[in-house]
This record gives sequence, structure tokens and C-alpha cells, in this order.
Amino acid sequence: MNASIDQPSVGSSSPDSSRADSGYAASDRADSSHGREHRLTKLFRPRSIVLVGATEKSAWTGFIMQNLRDFAFDGYVCAVNRNGVDVMGVKGHRSCRDIGRDIDVAFIFVPQSAVIEALEDAAAAGIRNAAILTSGYAEIGEQGAVLQQQLLDKACELGMNIWGPNSLGYNNVSARTPVSSVPAVLPLLAPRIAIVSQSGATASELNEFAHSQNIGTSFVAATGNEAQLSLADVIDYLVDDEDTRAIAVFAESIRNPAVFAQAARRCRERRKPIVMLKIGRSELAGEVAKAHTGSLAGNDKVFDAICERLGVIRVHSVEDLIVTAGLLAATGPLPASGLGFISISGGACTLVADGAEAAGASVPAFPAETTAVLKTLIADFASSMNPLDVTGAAVRDPSLLERLIPVAAAAPGIGIVGVNIGVPTVEGAVALPAGLAAIGRAVKTIDKPAVMVLTTVKTLTDVTRRMIAEHDLPHVVCGIDPMLRAVAKAAWWSQRLAATSQPLLLPAANDRATAAGLDLSKTRSATPGRSNEPGATLVPRLSNERAVLDFLASHGVPVIPAKIIRSRADAQSLGMTGPLALKILSPDIAHKTEVGGVRLNVVAADAATAYDEILKAVKSHKPEVRIEGVIASPMRQGGVELLVGVRRDPTWGPTITIGLGGVLVELLADVAIAALPVEHREVLDMLSRLRGRKLLQGFRNSATTDLDRLADVIVNIGNAALALGPKLDSLEVNPLLVRGNEIEALDGLVIWRSVE
Amino acid sequence: MNASIDQPSVGSSSPDSSRADSGYAASDRADSSHGREHRLTKLFRPRSIVLVGATEKSAWTGFIMQNLRDFAFDGYVCAVNRNGVDVMGVKGHRSCRDIGRDIDVAFIFVPQSAVIEALEDAAAAGIRNAAILTSGYAEIGEQGAVLQQQLLDKACELGMNIWGPNSLGYNNVSARTPVSSVPAVLPLLAPRIAIVSQSGATASELNEFAHSQNIGTSFVAATGNEAQLSLADVIDYLVDDEDTRAIAVFAESIRNPAVFAQAARRCRERRKPIVMLKIGRSELAGEVAKAHTGSLAGNDKVFDAICERLGVIRVHSVEDLIVTAGLLAATGPLPASGLGFISISGGACTLVADGAEAAGASVPAFPAETTAVLKTLIADFASSMNPLDVTGAAVRDPSLLERLIPVAAAAPGIGIVGVNIGVPTVEGAVALPAGLAAIGRAVKTIDKPAVMVLTTVKTLTDVTRRMIAEHDLPHVVCGIDPMLRAVAKAAWWSQRLAATSQPLLLPAANDRATAAGLDLSKTRSATPGRSNEPGATLVPRLSNERAVLDFLASHGVPVIPAKIIRSRADAQSLGMTGPLALKILSPDIAHKTEVGGVRLNVVAADAATAYDEILKAVKSHKPEVRIEGVIASPMRQGGVELLVGVRRDPTWGPTITIGLGGVLVELLADVAIAALPVEHREVLDMLSRLRGRKLLQGFRNSATTDLDRLADVIVNIGNAALALGPKLDSLEVNPLLVRGNEIEALDGLVIWRSVE
Repeated sequence: MNASIDQPSVGSSSPDSSRADSGYAASDRADSSHGREHRLTKLFRPRSIVLVGATEKSAWTGFIMQNLRDFAFDGYVCAVNRNGVDVMGVKGHRSCRDIGRDIDVAFIFVPQSAVIEALEDAAAAGIRNAAILTSGYAEIGEQGAVLQQQLLDKACELGMNIWGPNSLGYNNVSARTPVSSVPAVLPLLAPRIAIVSQSGATASELNEFAHSQNIGTSFVAATGNEAQLSLADVIDYLVDDEDTRAIAVFAESIRNPAVFAQAARRCRERRKPIVMLKIGRSELAGEVAKAHTGSLAGNDKVFDAICERLGVIRVHSVEDLIVTAGLLAATGPLPASGLGFISISGGACTLVADGAEAAGASVPAFPAETTAVLKTLIADFASSMNPLDVTGAAVRDPSLLERLIPVAAAAPGIGIVGVNIGVPTVEGAVALPAGLAAIGRAVKTIDKPAVMVLTTVKTLTDVTRRMIAEHDLPHVVCGIDPMLRAVAKAAWWSQRLAATSQPLLLPAANDRATAAGLDLSKTRSATPGRSNEPGATLVPRLSNERAVLDFLASHGVPVIPAKIIRSRADAQSLGMTGPLALKILSPDIAHKTEVGGVRLNVVAADAATAYDEILKAVKSHKPEVRIEGVIASPMRQGGVELLVGVRRDPTWGPTITIGLGGVLVELLADVAIAALPVEHREVLDMLSRLRGRKLLQGFRNSATTDLDRLADVIVNIGNAALALGPKLDSLEVNPLLVRGNEIEALDGLVIWRSVE
Repeated sequence: MNASIDQPSVGSSSPDSSRADSGYAASDRADSSHGREHRLTKLFRPRSIVLVGATEKSAWTGFIMQNLRDFAFDGYVCAVNRNGVDVMGVKGHRSCRDIGRDIDVAFIFVPQSAVIEALEDAAAAGIRNAAILTSGYAEIGEQGAVLQQQLLDKACELGMNIWGPNSLGYNNVSARTPVSSVPAVLPLLAPRIAIVSQSGATASELNEFAHSQNIGTSFVAATGNEAQLSLADVIDYLVDDEDTRAIAVFAESIRNPAVFAQAARRCRERRKPIVMLKIGRSELAGEVAKAHTGSLAGNDKVFDAICERLGVIRVHSVEDLIVTAGLLAATGPLPASGLGFISISGGACTLVADGAEAAGASVPAFPAETTAVLKTLIADFASSMNPLDVTGAAVRDPSLLERLIPVAAAAPGIGIVGVNIGVPTVEGAVALPAGLAAIGRAVKTIDKPAVMVLTTVKTLTDVTRRMIAEHDLPHVVCGIDPMLRAVAKAAWWSQRLAATSQPLLLPAANDRATAAGLDLSKTRSATPGRSNEPGATLVPRLSNERAVLDFLASHGVPVIPAKIIRSRADAQSLGMTGPLALKILSPDIAHKTEVGGVRLNVVAADAATAYDEILKAVKSHKPEVRIEGVIASPMRQGGVELLVGVRRDPTWGPTITIGLGGVLVELLADVAIAALPVEHREVLDMLSRLRGRKLLQGFRNSATTDLDRLADVIVNIGNAALALGPKLDSLEVNPLLVRGNEIEALDGLVIWRSVE
């Protein structure tokens, strides 16, 4: 059709839209600006699209055509339908093979029964990319999952990239190229952030909310069921998209962890933040997600650890997702973590002070030098603290703001300045134009990022944009609490940029496929997913507690000394003094106490008797078990007990969990998790996140621990577990006893995977 | 001036505003509709106002006059200024005495140096109420506090009610009576909630935000420094205001706890919720509040306990404050706690499922009967769970919603239905009018409250109101997370309505005055603040541990048996068996172990020797202390240690704190607090809120506790503390040892107040 779609001047509905947008036009950079063309450029930035299933009376067709007009798409569009008729001004064909020119993407929304045929037709016409809107696949249960597998098999057989099914498609906004029924929100704003969502309706909500916050989108993707291509692939594409300064992701699951991890790593190198709203905090959420897009939400605490490792910002609401991405798109990395907050409202200052801690934001006290300067600037100040209440004085003399902002910004520890003063959203609203102008001038003189802060969440409008342009105002953030949370996340991410990080040891692809209930191992060629763990050769089979401890010892983990008693004679010549702990040694017994297999505080002279009694008790409880002897170890008193466990997550590979204090772990789930391998500094960070951390710092009567040494031991436990290879399911050291600087593993357990 | 102010037709700027508002006109109920006239009716609903300090060039005068026009105030307004000139069309006088007619309120905004004189002038003219906007009082520090005390003294001397100073005043919106510079937000909406804020700018922000959420205000008050009248007085007035269905309060401190508690109690009787955003969670917030309105924020955990007792809803953000008040104003008490959520977006359903737990909201599973019915209504449902994703099927057949909503609403445990579907906020937005109409019809057939839920926070507009009116839609709530939090709070409040509650034992007024740094004891006649604790007569002075335990025992608290050893002879004839704990008995020693004053596991035969050694050790460490002997008690092993402490809060009176497990209390501050006296059921509730509660429920090797008996003991400890009268500062039982059903206080400490 080429020019057959009316092309309204984009943004024409707001002739007075802000300067920030007036310079905006469809990006005409070729994709070669990426350096090399991305493997999915033809899919994500097509110059020609065929709408397969388009009819005059279909609502979807209407939405899609409206989008093409709203975005003023200037590529080629045609339609395929049963009768080969033209649709809404677009040339119609009976099949893709009839089009007679190269097409980059087939957008398929035929009934489910016709999807495979449509795919074959497209492939026959040389089309390599298809976006599939049709639903009724994995999201409806087992039967749909079978159909989805067939669809995937077909796509792989045909060598096609497929997007969806059950997806509303994607809008490459900065290229003004919609392959989607997610409506454009007009006027288009200067592109800042990309939105990637598994849910289509949510993609649309996020897009609308971003617009209401004056945050323009560069790309909006609804990935749907992700039979083949997933949100990880879009993120990978967006890493090199210059119009995308931050990526906001709404996910129910991560189906392709290898691609996701790689894309996240590349994002960090480019200093491009990924902000993630991933559901899965509750069991209910997991059930609902499964019914929605056939997702498995996974272990939420493990995902937290993965985000920590990858430098991905995790948020927990739709509003935080957009506000955080929008803030970072505007500010870039923060030079320091502290927020300097300036307001004409004392109430807003108390709200900032009150909310900062809960939000995790730092609002550091100004140093004496700063306070001294502030006091000279305004005589009747009651206080010169941060947050800074400039009171009604700034209403009488707006130039005050111009003098105060640079002083606050220059204070050490301040990485971002927030200025809280009304910016109108409707015509005729009360405003302080001289104040706004003063702010605009002030922020240009400082070398740190600044934002305007509105006290509550509201819809920013063309009126707001006009004020922003007129007074050269920085990015406007709505809502004190969302702002505080966004600043806290931005500060975390900015710090995280500096740290190097270990690669993830992802499980082999077939692990994930099994977890997802699909067999992708042969077919998902685009997303290989390899295991980079050490091979499973030469791994000892550690069949009992002592073998585990000995193996740990060989990896630099201090373990409690022990002797194995295999006879009364052994027991009589132990050569150990002090009270002893005697425990049955058997590969078949998990709970030793319950079968009479443990005796504590045994004096050496009684060892032989205790040995006899243990054997007798165990044999009477469990006649069938193999008994390898009795372990004798010295009794240990006092100290702090840690649990260190390594477990294999089906999506993310081996993780390590540290818990502190028996009661704290079991009662309060006071644990920290990280992906393996862990570094020393990460372990220190994990220990510092434990609520019971004071127990290691000389709390009450406990001795102060050498945390560096403890971290080394824990790193070694993780490495020992990795050395056991991919057949390890879990390894647990419980307890790892810490008494001041004495650190000792008292017991160890290894469980191997039953599926080989 | 009477008709001298132009009176635009209020709401005329939106001729198409919703039906909900079209019926709204200024309330013409006389205040006698309250049954009796409130003591502050003339202040809050004046028919005549004098603006003292009004001049043509004053910005404040402009704001206030604009407000009188915007609200179409139809009472009498005049001005007083130095030259007695007319101002902005209002008759001017040189003094209030020159006005020549009765005036209900003097609104004073003269410079600070002229305020006292203005007050005297008003009093001389027979004016009994003054609202004072002028600032420079307690909010600027000590010097201002002195001036504020003088102002208060003067008001008391003159017998006047004063509002402020440093206050923007108040708008009685439903009476269309502004005494304030807080601007009206037009069009006025049907009144639903009152906003009461110590901060003026925040009052204005809250009012704007409420309007943006389509929640009309009945009353908007900025109380400022509260030298005399406080937010508690406004709340007390609003209890009987029929246009106020919920009261939203932003507070930095509660200056008048007696009036507040009484008003809260009356609100609960009227089933009128108070929703409270009170800062004070952080130390920084306390400092900032002091500089803002001279407030002392107080102990935040105690305030939580007070809200729990009074049935006041506490929230932690501006948005939650308005959304929660707006929800309850629309729904009234919920018949059950569960939310039934219905959406056409699977993403929204996962967000609800994911966020419910963190928000504290209950989204109960539908029972099998409900699921069965739902399945018959829509064949290709993948799931029929709550939250209910009706999928795109409802787009094709909107009548589905009409059939599904009543089924979900009828499910047991469901107390409120949330329907998530787009409601337009701008002209031409994509909408599903047939769906909206179906919802409107459906909610009329159900006997439970329903709300519309928008996925994100946005500004609701005249367009929204038109849709609401057209389709008879219920209240619209914006934002899934704010909705979930509001539903959780509403459910809590609704349950709380049923429970009776003990009155607060507030400290005497001079306690509070001392705490606030002001001497109000003689002058604050309007807010007497009496102590209703038992008198301090006949109270034993408990000078040592054993005296405390004996006193507790006399109040029904089981305590560990003990004998006091005063000589070697006593020690040799103890008549106690089993290992003993020996502890020095002295009124002067707080930390017994540090001075060698404790010996554990002493066998009876060694008691005399241990007695000698303890005396010797203590005398060598602390030669100056009084020694009353040595206490001998049996050793106790195992069990769970509780801490039960009673402490006097300077604002709220005696409170009781329960903590569980030594490490949990000290490390994690795992405590529950309540105001005294506590009832049995409250103590059970407190125990259930402890994170370590499992320790009482047979966790690990601990025996299951008889919680009823434990609660009785704790109630008795509270009553024992109360019996010690107002001179008690604190009483602590630590530990209260619980071993299955054996409960025993092992140690007790009383501290008396040093100020008598």
C-alpha cells in the first residue's frame, strides 16, 4: 500500500507540545548504527509487513490499521485473506506467495486451526519472521501446550523466527513501525524507555502510564506465550538501540535464562538499566501466571539473587517500574547515592524524611560547611537540614531557589537533587513561574542530575510539557514515595555498575525444557542454553557425612576432626580427649537421632560402650540399613550456627544459601541467596543482609567473627559444590559453627539428582 | 459584603460533570442536624468572616478572596486593615470594633508583631473565634515557641478559640465556606471525605489528589502549629458531619491525645473511618517535623498500638491515605474480608495475586460450587480461580461480565468485588461501553460493595465522571497496589468495628505539656487532659527484684519460688533441693553478673560458700552499695523466654510490650505493643503478631503453650503495673519463662519516675 494509509502528522493533536518533543522525528538511523545488524533486525524493524487474516469486519484488523496510521508507518503493508480482497485500503492477496515482493514480517491473526498453514505459506514466500497474535495455546492448559509445541516444531522445521503466540505484537516506536494491536498513545513523546511485557494488556497499560508520566517509549513489546522468541531476545535487541535509555520489563517467567543473562550483561556494559517487575512472590501468583501465559514463575528468592548478580533492578509495582526506568533514562548513573531534597513544603520534607528508610533511599545530612553556607543565604531559616524546607520564603523570593540548589547539589554524598514545587498539569493552575525559571537556571549550573518532584502521582499533560520547555526544567517525577524508591534503585544500580560479576552457571537447556513441560532440546536452535559447569567426570560419590566433610576439607573448608570407629578396639584406642559426640555412619540414615544413632558428651573411657549401644539401637530401629561405623568427634559448645546450602535451581543453575542461627533460619527464613560461583565480596554482602548479622559481630556474649575468613570458607564451600558437577542436586553444611575466629563444618550432606 | 463577591455557578466549568455530582449543592442543613450544636460550629461553619490584615496588594488576600468566590460563599465578609479601606470589593474597617455586627470568625494574617493586638481587637468586638495564618512561632525554634505561648496565654485570657498559628486555615467545602488560602479544586465534587492536615501545602496536595481520584471533599483543614485547637478538635467536629463519610488525616504529631481518642471512639460508634498518615517512622522525620510545625513525632510503634486500639487505620503514603478514605467512603464497612477480582487482563490478575500478600489483602480461593458455576458460564475458561481472568472473551461478549460478577460476589468470604476494565479519562480513548454497561447492571444486583479498578494511577476527569454516570458504575479506584492496600485496611477496619475496646489511660495534661516544651497546664482549658489511672496512694515502693516478683504474685502472676539468704545460717538451712541460682539482692545494682553477684547451678550443700563468695565479690566491686541479702531460687532449664515490659509513653500513657525469645527481641526488635489495660483477646492477637510465635506452638523441641493461660498472665502483669499508679515509669518482667504450660516470672524490675 505504501502511501495508501493516511499519515496524520504525528503529535499534531498537541501543537503546543514541549520542546523536549518538538525535535523528535522517526529515527532514520539505519540499523547499521548498531555496528552490526542484530539477528532480529528484520523482525523488530521491518520495512514490509503482511497482515495475515486481515478482514474488513475484524476488530483486530481495525486496531492494527489504526496503529499503522497513528505511527505513520512509511514502509510497505499488504494483507492476506481467504478471498484475497483489499482491506481498509490495503492491497489483499490469497496467499503470501502471491504478494510478489520481499516481506520482512508476517503478522498472523488467523483462527488457530489455520496458523500452521499460514506459517507454511509465509515460509514458502520466503518470509523468515512471523508474529502470531492467535491464542489458545499453552495459556489454556495441556491441550494448548501440545498445539504450541507443534507450532514451535513447525517454525524450527521451516527455519522461521516466531513471536508469540497469544501475543499482541510489538511497536518499534522510534522507528514508527507497529506490528501490534497495542495502541499508540498520542502525541508521541521523545523516546526514552522500552517496555517489554509478557502480558499484552499490561504492555498497553504500561505504555499509557509512561505517557502520563511524560516518559516517551522507544519500543513496546508484548511477548505472549514465547514459544520461541522471548523477552530476553527483545532485550538483547534493545541493548544497542540508541533511542532506548532504559528497559522496563514486566514478566511472569524468564523462559530463556541464557539469553537473558547475556543481554543483561551487555546492558550493564552499555550502562543501560533493566528494570524488572517479575511476579512470583506468592503461590497464588504462580498459579495465575500459569493460566495466563503458561508460565512457571520459579523461586522468587533465587530470582532476586540473579538480579543482584546481573545488576538488574527489581521493583514490585507497575508504577515503580515506569517511574524508575524513566528516572534513570533521564539521569543516567548517579555519581553518589544521596538525595538532596528541596521543597517549599515542610509537609513534603517530613514525608521524604519519613519514607526514605522504608524506600531504601539515602537522604544524608548536609555537612557543617554546607549548612553554614545555607544559613547565610536565608536568614530566618529554622533549619538547614536535608531535606531542606525553604518555606514560604521561596514564594516571596523565588531567586532563593537558584542560590540554594547549587549549594545543596555540591554537598558531598549527594548524587541527585530533587526539587519539590508545583508544576501545573492544567491550564490556569496556580504556579510559581519565577520559581520554575529559577530552578531551570540553577540545575544547568550543577554537575549532578536533578529532577522535579511532584508530591502526588498525577497525569502530566501538554500543559506540563509546555512549562518544562519554557523553563528548561529537568525530568518530572510524580509521587514522593515512588520517587524515593526510584532514587534508591537508581543508586543501587549505579553502584552495581562498578562491580564485576561472575557469569551464571546455567543448567543445560533440557533442564529448563523439562521444567517448562516442553521438549525444546532439539528444536530451539536460536536459544542454545549450554551448561558451563565443570564436567561430571572424576567426581567422587560422597556417600556419607564424613566423606562429605573430608571432601570439603580438601577444598579448604575447616571441618571438625573425627575418627571412624569400626570396632570396640577402635573405640578403646581413639586417642581423643574431652567429651565426644558419637554418631552412626551410614549412607542410608538421614535422621540419626531418631534411630538412636547419636550419643553426646561421651567421655573417652565410655566410647566403646557407647559404640555398642549405638549399633544395637540402630540395628533394632532399622535392621536393613548399611552401617559403616560410628564417627567420633569432639563436643563443641557455644558459638553461632550457620547453615550453608547449595541447591540447583531448574532455571538459574546452582545457588548458595546462607542462614544464620538455627532458630532464625527455621523460624524467620533469615537467609541470603546468591548464584554460584560467589566472590568474597558478595559473601560479605550476603552476610550483611542477614537480619541476625549482629550475632557475628560480638552481640551479647558471642565473640566477634573474622568475617573475611568466614567469607573465604563460604566461597570454598560453593566451589567444592561446583566441583561435584552437574549431577549434584544439593550440598548442605549444617551447622557451620562459628566461635570467634574458629570456623568449623560440623556436618555435611550431599544429595545427587535422581534424573541423570 | 454579602453579594459583593461574584458568585460563579460552582462546577460550571464542567457542564457535563457526572450525575454523581449534578445533584450536589451546598448543604443547607443547619448544624442542628447534628442533634446539638458542636462547641466549634461557629468556628467551622461561620456565617460571617472578617479578614484581618487584608490589603489590595497582599497575595494571601488574593488567594482568600479567590476562594470565597470559587466556593460561592454566601455569608458576610468584611476586612480590617490599618487604613480601613475596602479591599477587592469587600468593605474595610480600621478595627473589628468598627464593623458593627456580629462576626463568627476573625481570619488573621497581619504581621507577627500585630497578632496579639488583632486578637484583643477581635475579642473586644465580641468575636470568639480566630484563625491565625501568621507564621514565625514554634516552627522556627525556641524563640518562636515563647511567642506562641504568649499567643496562647492571650487567647485563654480573652476566652477565645484560636486556630493556628502558621496555618492556612480550613475550607468547609460542603457548606461552601472557606476560611483559608487552600485553593478550591473545581468542579466541586459530591462531598465524601474530609482532609485534616497539619501541613498547609500538604492539605492542598491531598485535596488536589483526592479530586484527581474523583473523591470529593467535605472539609479541608490545615491545622498548622495547633497552639490551642488541634486536628483532634476538627475530627471531633466532623464525627457528626453527615457529608463526611471518612476522615483522612496527615499528622506530624498528636498534640491532644484525649480529644483525639474521644473523637476516634465516637467515629467508630458512627462507623466513620479515620485514615491516618502520621510521620515518625524515622529519626530524621522527627527532626524535620520539629522544624516544620514544632511537632514531636513520638514513639511510632506506640502510635501503631494506639491506632490498633482506637480502630484508626494507619497508612504510609499520601496516595494510600486518599485512596483508602475514598474507598471506605464509597463502600462503608465490608461484610467480609475477601476481595473477588475480575479482569479482562491476565496481567492484572497476576499483579493482584502477586501483590495481595504484601498488601495484606485477602484474595480467597473460590469454593468448588462457585468454580463449577463459573465454568458453566464460559466454556473455554482455562481457570475459574480468584483473581478471575475473563480473557478477551469478555471483549467479544461483554454480557459475560454481567453473568460472572454476581457469581463471584456471591462466593462466601468475598466482601468486596473489584472489576478491572478500562474507564476512559480522555475523549476518544478506547473503551468497551457494552462492558461498562454490563458492569453497571451487574453491580446493582449484588448485595456486596463493588469498585472499578484501573491498573495504574491516573487522573480521573470529567470524561471519566460522564462514563460513570452514563453506565451507573461504582467507585473507581486507581492502581492495583493502592487498591489492594486500601481493601486490606478496609477489611481490618470493618472487622475492628465489632470489637469493643478499653479506654486509653492518658497521662495528665502536664506530662504532655512538658513533653511539648510548653506550659499548657493552666491555660489549655478547652483540652483538659485528665489522668484516669488509679491514684498514687497506697502504692508499695518495690525496691528490689524479689519485692517486684512478690507484688506480681499478689496480682496473679506465677513467679519463681525463692528464699532470701541473709546469713550463712540461712544458707545452711534453705530446705531447697536441686541446683540453685543465687543472686545478690540490692536496690542499687542493675547488672548483677558484672559485679560477681550471680552464681548458677549451685548445689544446696554449697549454698553457704556461694553466699560468702557473692558478698565478697560484690563488696569488692561496689563497696558503697546497700546489700539486702542473696536470693536463692531453683535453676530452670529450657523453655521459651518472653519479655513483658510496661512503659509510660509521654503522650499515650502506659503501654505494654511483649517480646519473644531473647535473641529475637534484642536482635530483631520482634515485639508487639498495646495500650494498657489490655484484654485477653488483645494479648492473644499480640502474641500472634510476633514473628517468633511458632516457638510457642511446639516448634522444634519446645512444648506447645497454653496460650490462653499465657494471655491471662500477661493481662495480670499489665494490671499489676497499673496498680502501681502514675508514678511508675516502667515495670519489666524478663524473662517470663514458658515451658509448655508452666509459666513463671524469673526476674522483675520496677523503675519509678524521677519527676514527681
